[in-house]
Amino acid sequence: MASKSSVPRADSALKVLASKLAQPFEAEIQSTIAAVVSSGRVAPKLVGFLANADPAAKAYAEWTERAFTRDGLRYERRDVAEHELEDALEAANQDPDVHGIMIYYPVFGAQPSFHGGSHDDYLRDCVSPFKDVEGLCHFYRRSLYRNRRFVEDAQLKKCILPCTPLAVVKVLEGLGVYDSQLPVGDRMRGKVVSVINRSEVVGRPLAAMLANDGAIVYSVDIDSIYEYRRGTLELTSEALRSTEATVRISDIVVLGVPSAAYKLDVSWVKDGAIVLNVASHKNIDEEALLATCKGVRYVGQVGKVTVAMLERNLLRLHYNFGSGEGVKWSSDMAALALGAVP
Amino acid sequence: MASKSSVPRADSALKVLASKLAQPFEAEIQSTIAAVVSSGRVAPKLVGFLANADPAAKAYAEWTERAFTRDGLRYERRDVAEHELEDALEAANQDPDVHGIMIYYPVFGAQPSFHGGSHDDYLRDCVSPFKDVEGLCHFYRRSLYRNRRFVEDAQLKKCILPCTPLAVVKVLEGLGVYDSQLPVGDRMRGKVVSVINRSEVVGRPLAAMLANDGAIVYSVDIDSIYEYRRGTLELTSEALRSTEATVRISDIVVLGVPSAAYKLDVSWVKDGAIVLNVASHKNIDEEALLATCKGVRYVGQVGKVTVAMLERNLLRLHYNFGSGEGVKWSSDMAALALGAVP
Repeated sequence: MASKSSVPRADSALKVLASKLAQPFEAEIQSTIAAVVSSGRVAPKLVGFLANADPAAKAYAEWTERAFTRDGLRYERRDVAEHELEDALEAANQDPDVHGIMIYYPVFGAQPSFHGGSHDDYLRDCVSPFKDVEGLCHFYRRSLYRNRRFVEDAQLKKCILPCTPLAVVKVLEGLGVYDSQLPVGDRMRGKVVSVINRSEVVGRPLAAMLANDGAIVYSVDIDSIYEYRRGTLELTSEALRSTEATVRISDIVVLGVPSAAYKLDVSWVKDGAIVLNVASHKNIDEEALLATCKGVRYVGQVGKVTVAMLERNLLRLHYNFGSGEGVKWSSDMAALALGAVP
Repeated sequence: MASKSSVPRADSALKVLASKLAQPFEAEIQSTIAAVVSSGRVAPKLVGFLANADPAAKAYAEWTERAFTRDGLRYERRDVAEHELEDALEAANQDPDVHGIMIYYPVFGAQPSFHGGSHDDYLRDCVSPFKDVEGLCHFYRRSLYRNRRFVEDAQLKKCILPCTPLAVVKVLEGLGVYDSQLPVGDRMRGKVVSVINRSEVVGRPLAAMLANDGAIVYSVDIDSIYEYRRGTLELTSEALRSTEATVRISDIVVLGVPSAAYKLDVSWVKDGAIVLNVASHKNIDEEALLATCKGVRYVGQVGKVTVAMLERNLLRLHYNFGSGEGVKWSSDMAALALGAVP
């Protein structure tokens, strides 16, 4: 069997490793932490809640821990029974020594019943916005969808962005897709992107982020295609209502289909396109892509960049709220807001 | 074919109509509204957003409108395209003449992808807690799961409870199941309940409400059974890890399975039990139940009581926040809370 390196390649087709793209971020994080610690402060601390027996979740937790330890951040895994998770979250929300919190999903699983609402969705919003290192609570998603980039009017504290979508943005920056000559918020001007997945965890936030930066984004899911422009959701014109049609005009294709059966037809991919796979399954035949598609750049997984973004988000939370404001979320941010009404 | 009234019945088996159970609430609402209007104030107003072409959703909207008009409340249906709903919600959130908001689901549908998060789940939390007449935003669910019954420390403003679960509680009160000799929060003491469904819209909030009132509740879903006591989630003992086992010891069985194929085995139902069907499908063979199960009381649907609860919730929101506090949710309650941090 031929080794990967001897697989035939189309002209300048290239496979890019996430580990390489993650390196500059890891270096930056290490020097930031070194400065924090040398100034006599403790390093920021992430608590990761593991409440299932899923080997993939455990592997992710171990992987997070290794990266955090390597980079000088504090990490603590808390293993809890699923029915005790909410109370454990509440304790961490109120603990001033905890700067970031994440949950390894699934906990109760994502059972669709009636029109929506799983216990896991509920848990995601039980993480205080002051500590939500994944950026997946409703407050940060809503900020993103409304292109509001700061948590407060003074615009000193940036919002947390969801890790996996943020990793995709950083990969695209690393590949030189963002035009740094243009102002922030316009650096993807003229770029066409297809994002195949529209979950609230990956696909929709990613579509919004790229559109907020000026790209035209086609958000493709099982039964519909929407177009995002500047964070605004539009119905896609009739001619573009197929995955094939949007992929054929896309400079960038992001694959995030949570199914082993899904494979994108490589013949749809434009020469010179960038293809990123963010699903745990391979949504495309990598060898066929690299063999047939001229100038394509393929990133098979973004996990290492995602973990670097977890670290960056923790640093941001520590910067934003490290002097203890987080504890004021108290038992409920909403109660605080309601209580503030005269 | 025999008419329903001539179907054989077991001793004192009884079918109870929701329309009858709804009447006292309707009368109470009408007199409250009459008092509001005669004092020179405008009646509270509900805005219902219809953003799909689902005939069932439209029928529910028309049904809501008829009930609200009959009872002297204001109702306005706003038909919007699905991709314009978020902005339309935001406008209603900030409109001081709107006291309650609801969405007729599904909008984008409940597509499970990765571990959770549908666009519809997101929208549910875009309704301001100051106007959430369905009581389904995260703030009210979280309050319920933590058995916090008021929105503020002063304990003047009661939390909104989700309509369908609240309707079930009111049906049980109407049937004399709640023991009014006991203190509030203990009136279901000793009662055993099985709730077949654990969605965040119906089953889980209902289980929590009944447990908060002292019942032992078995919460049954496709692949697990939990026990709720006093709002606390417990793992069920091994002997009770089947629907049959929990139903056989239950005084009350609530059926909410969103599938035409699901039918509860009537032989599992205890003599004298109360069976409520809250699903749009009939989860039990009504005639077989009434023919074989002595002293059973069966409520085939609770929709009319649910609409009465929508009305009551609107009155509560108007009472709690009718002087305009709701507008202060501004573009984001969370921003308010964050902004309040010194």
